[in-house]
Amino acid sequence: MNIKRFFPILEWLPSYCLTTFNQDLLAAVIVTVMLIPQSLAYAMLAGLPPEVGLYASIAPLILYAVFGTSRTLSVGPVAVIALMTGATAGAIALPGSSEYITSVLLLTFLSGAMLTLMGLLRLGFLANFLSHPVISGFITASAVIIAFSQLKHLLGVSASGHNVLSLFSDLVQQIPNVHLITLAMGTGTLIFLYAARWWLKPMLSGLGIPAGLASGLGRLAPIIAVIVTTWICGHFALADAGLAVVGQIPAGMPPLTLPGFDTALWSQLAVGALLISIVGFVESVSVGQTLAAKRRQRIDPNQELIGLGSANLGAAFSAGMPVTGGFSRSVVNFDAGAQTPAAGAMTALGIMAVILWFTPLLSNLPIATLAATIIVAVLSLIDLHAITHTWRYSRTDFSAILVTILITLLQGVEAGIMAGVGLSLALHLYRTSLPHSAVIGRIAGTEHFRNVERHQVETDPRILILRIDESLYFPNSRYLEDRISELTALHPQMQHLILSCQAVNHIDTSALDSLEVISQRLRDAGIALHLAEVKGPVMDRLKAVDFPQQLNGRVFMSTYDACKTLKKDSYLTAAESVENP
Amino acid sequence: MNIKRFFPILEWLPSYCLTTFNQDLLAAVIVTVMLIPQSLAYAMLAGLPPEVGLYASIAPLILYAVFGTSRTLSVGPVAVIALMTGATAGAIALPGSSEYITSVLLLTFLSGAMLTLMGLLRLGFLANFLSHPVISGFITASAVIIAFSQLKHLLGVSASGHNVLSLFSDLVQQIPNVHLITLAMGTGTLIFLYAARWWLKPMLSGLGIPAGLASGLGRLAPIIAVIVTTWICGHFALADAGLAVVGQIPAGMPPLTLPGFDTALWSQLAVGALLISIVGFVESVSVGQTLAAKRRQRIDPNQELIGLGSANLGAAFSAGMPVTGGFSRSVVNFDAGAQTPAAGAMTALGIMAVILWFTPLLSNLPIATLAATIIVAVLSLIDLHAITHTWRYSRTDFSAILVTILITLLQGVEAGIMAGVGLSLALHLYRTSLPHSAVIGRIAGTEHFRNVERHQVETDPRILILRIDESLYFPNSRYLEDRISELTALHPQMQHLILSCQAVNHIDTSALDSLEVISQRLRDAGIALHLAEVKGPVMDRLKAVDFPQQLNGRVFMSTYDACKTLKKDSYLTAAESVENP
Repeated sequence: MNIKRFFPILEWLPSYCLTTFNQDLLAAVIVTVMLIPQSLAYAMLAGLPPEVGLYASIAPLILYAVFGTSRTLSVGPVAVIALMTGATAGAIALPGSSEYITSVLLLTFLSGAMLTLMGLLRLGFLANFLSHPVISGFITASAVIIAFSQLKHLLGVSASGHNVLSLFSDLVQQIPNVHLITLAMGTGTLIFLYAARWWLKPMLSGLGIPAGLASGLGRLAPIIAVIVTTWICGHFALADAGLAVVGQIPAGMPPLTLPGFDTALWSQLAVGALLISIVGFVESVSVGQTLAAKRRQRIDPNQELIGLGSANLGAAFSAGMPVTGGFSRSVVNFDAGAQTPAAGAMTALGIMAVILWFTPLLSNLPIATLAATIIVAVLSLIDLHAITHTWRYSRTDFSAILVTILITLLQGVEAGIMAGVGLSLALHLYRTSLPHSAVIGRIAGTEHFRNVERHQVETDPRILILRIDESLYFPNSRYLEDRISELTALHPQMQHLILSCQAVNHIDTSALDSLEVISQRLRDAGIALHLAEVKGPVMDRLKAVDFPQQLNGRVFMSTYDACKTLKKDSYLTAAESVENP
Repeated sequence: MNIKRFFPILEWLPSYCLTTFNQDLLAAVIVTVMLIPQSLAYAMLAGLPPEVGLYASIAPLILYAVFGTSRTLSVGPVAVIALMTGATAGAIALPGSSEYITSVLLLTFLSGAMLTLMGLLRLGFLANFLSHPVISGFITASAVIIAFSQLKHLLGVSASGHNVLSLFSDLVQQIPNVHLITLAMGTGTLIFLYAARWWLKPMLSGLGIPAGLASGLGRLAPIIAVIVTTWICGHFALADAGLAVVGQIPAGMPPLTLPGFDTALWSQLAVGALLISIVGFVESVSVGQTLAAKRRQRIDPNQELIGLGSANLGAAFSAGMPVTGGFSRSVVNFDAGAQTPAAGAMTALGIMAVILWFTPLLSNLPIATLAATIIVAVLSLIDLHAITHTWRYSRTDFSAILVTILITLLQGVEAGIMAGVGLSLALHLYRTSLPHSAVIGRIAGTEHFRNVERHQVETDPRILILRIDESLYFPNSRYLEDRISELTALHPQMQHLILSCQAVNHIDTSALDSLEVISQRLRDAGIALHLAEVKGPVMDRLKAVDFPQQLNGRVFMSTYDACKTLKKDSYLTAAESVENP
């Protein structure tokens, strides 16, 4: 049982059979074909030689098959993580230099080590602090940056820039140097890919081809683009005419690499590695959970950390780059019928075959084609719906999206994420520090109590009932003191105050102190404090410190009980009960 | 109305009468006498010349009378703030140097400006993030540091040290150099003060003197100690024998001072000023609220920020030091019958008279006497009860106290507060990220539902009811996804899932996204998702984004309604309903 938790492979391997093998094999072949251009493109996006993307699609897949809990997740290089890798390593060394590659390997190692450690310590909940608005804003902004960064490959010029604005001005200055063959090849691919995406599937469906097959053929468009443009480039020797191509990829297995032990470099890369780990984990887990749910399977997020951690450690020791579970390839894997992570392991064997025997076929692949596939892939990540949806639902969450997008675009990916997380936390704390509370009165003839400001209810000037709609803890405990001071000053006839606590899930020490202070102050003012509808676990804790005994009032099961009891003459010392409209 | 909010003096000044004047005057005389040794002692504690304490007890009191909302709070130098001032300024310059005094004035100015700004922006809620365990741990640790720092004055030796450990080792090394007259004077005063505190009041009460007067006479003990030891020192010329005394205090009004504009110094002092502002504000507001409540008055925390801010700005421009509302002096002011802040203004006039005409009387006051009064005052701040009480109530809050105390003692006051606040926030977020939820079932024959693990309830394998005991927001939204994935995998017969939301006070965008994802995943798995007991404001928001329409289930008023409706045959597709024990 315990061994199975750490080696999820033991869940499915013992009962592996030929039927499953055939299903997995088919999925593996399809995913391998799809992965070749993706791996090359994302390595390029991270500023790395193309073969690094292929290397990162071998060992990580095999390790994930052993340690991962999702049956259908397909790990490897993905766009956003490639962008973050480039941004972090680019701050240390120049892309193309050997220091750059060293930095990327160390980053991969650190990320793998952090993920594994978080998994062993069961710290998966840390990823929760990346709120959906922050992730969605971050991915949208990253997609814009990635698309902008690929424009130079479509135009055949060189440009650099730390943010979208400087990239844009660089590109504008380079317009006179545009390489026309590259431009034709790039925009041609772009138009083809969009045409395939928007028209191919409806057209095929119109021809009577089943929707599943039509959609599958649609996904092959990038492969077709790669084959066609590579053939054109080779046939017309366009590389000699200045068209940038992938070039000679060294054949052979990935070399064994070891991360360096330069502690200064470790500390420079630590924050970047942490952010890459968390963003990758969040993306991967949400894809994994969505796919698992479709088959009523489940994944264990803490074990997923170990699975992704080992995948990244594998990448670090085999000349790879940071990897995570990718959305599009996992969907293809799932749709193609993969049943177990063995499909992933077979995909790794497929990529291995490519790198051993088929790299010469890729040497004439134009960079512009890869850039076009990247642009099409990342533009679909821009989530305008999430932005408008959040605007309608919550203005505070919308501000978190907006800040994340702006800071990511203008200051970079690390600053963007951290600003978003910081703002989300601050907004959450601000909101709970001003909890909703309402003075309530009884709806005539019932046992129900409602807000006096919204409903026609009965009140008594000598008995005030305050309903608290939030857990009580330090950011809001003093608010309660203020609120009750205010009510005490406003209601000079008050003799009893009832706190109605049905929505109070927790009372921390600060709030307990506040309740004691409130009880004491009310006692000094000649007012009794009562509690009603306190939840069981909350009451258990209050009893542990004898709070009910210190109270100069009582604890009632329900607000109705409290009112009924206190309205008896013996509890009230002056004036008649008055029915307020 | 609006003018009165910003000038609370207009609330009471127009109706000021002779009776009130007489009451205020009596309180002012008593507080003035008490304030003289306190002001000198706290200036010394902050590493400043003694007259600075007196200067800080003039302009701030007058300004607070104009802008403050508490009728009885007495502002001036206090022990913990003096310690923090010394720690912050001591990191910049050597105590006694002119740079040191410049730093303190700038710190006072920054603190005044921050408080005023926070008040104008109504940011008083920020102080809430200092939880009670953190404050209580911080004050206890500060008291220990202060008491240790005064031991050298009792022993007549010199010692310095950044934390309690280094101070202690310094003192031990200095034991051979102890000055015996100083030791005798210091320990004599200490014994007298403790005797007065423990025995005088009961003794006086035993002699038939009323408790109020006995307690008042007990508070005069420090004054008696000051008068007696000053007389002894003068009569026997002990200053010539090496007893350290206050010495010549320059007579005359406080000089006008202007804060410097050295921006480097500003940024070095900013964090310290912020912490001093917040700690001072928290202390002052809690004293003010306690006293106000006794007379059914109230204070406005945001206007209090302006009141304390102007008091500190006043101190900064009149050669003072940071001030705040002090506990002991405010209680004396209140008990002596002060009715309005005019008592504070009269106290300021009293201190002014002292500084103009009576400073020669203070020149023979032994430093050892002041040190003894400080030690007695701060040791009463050590709150062991809070520590044991917190231990009994909550182990997480206890860990926050412990960390605050240890870091304050070993690393200093700024590090201590920041570690405490950081830990409190982290613990809170961790707790809410793992919200309590329970699968519930119906108590036979009732409309009540309870946790299946704790009660004998009826369940149906086709209908699962999950009660959520926390607001849903980003740190816990993914937890809900995991929990429901787990339940789906565990209950293969499930056809309906009901979320019972009576304790959900808020659903943020992340949690809304999670609910949409959960709804989609359950739909894929052939399960309908229903909501029950959703609160009004929460439902309004869900309706704004048409969530109920997207749901593949329904929204029910109560859990009972939901169960009753779903148990009808039309909703269930298979198997018989089974009554589980």
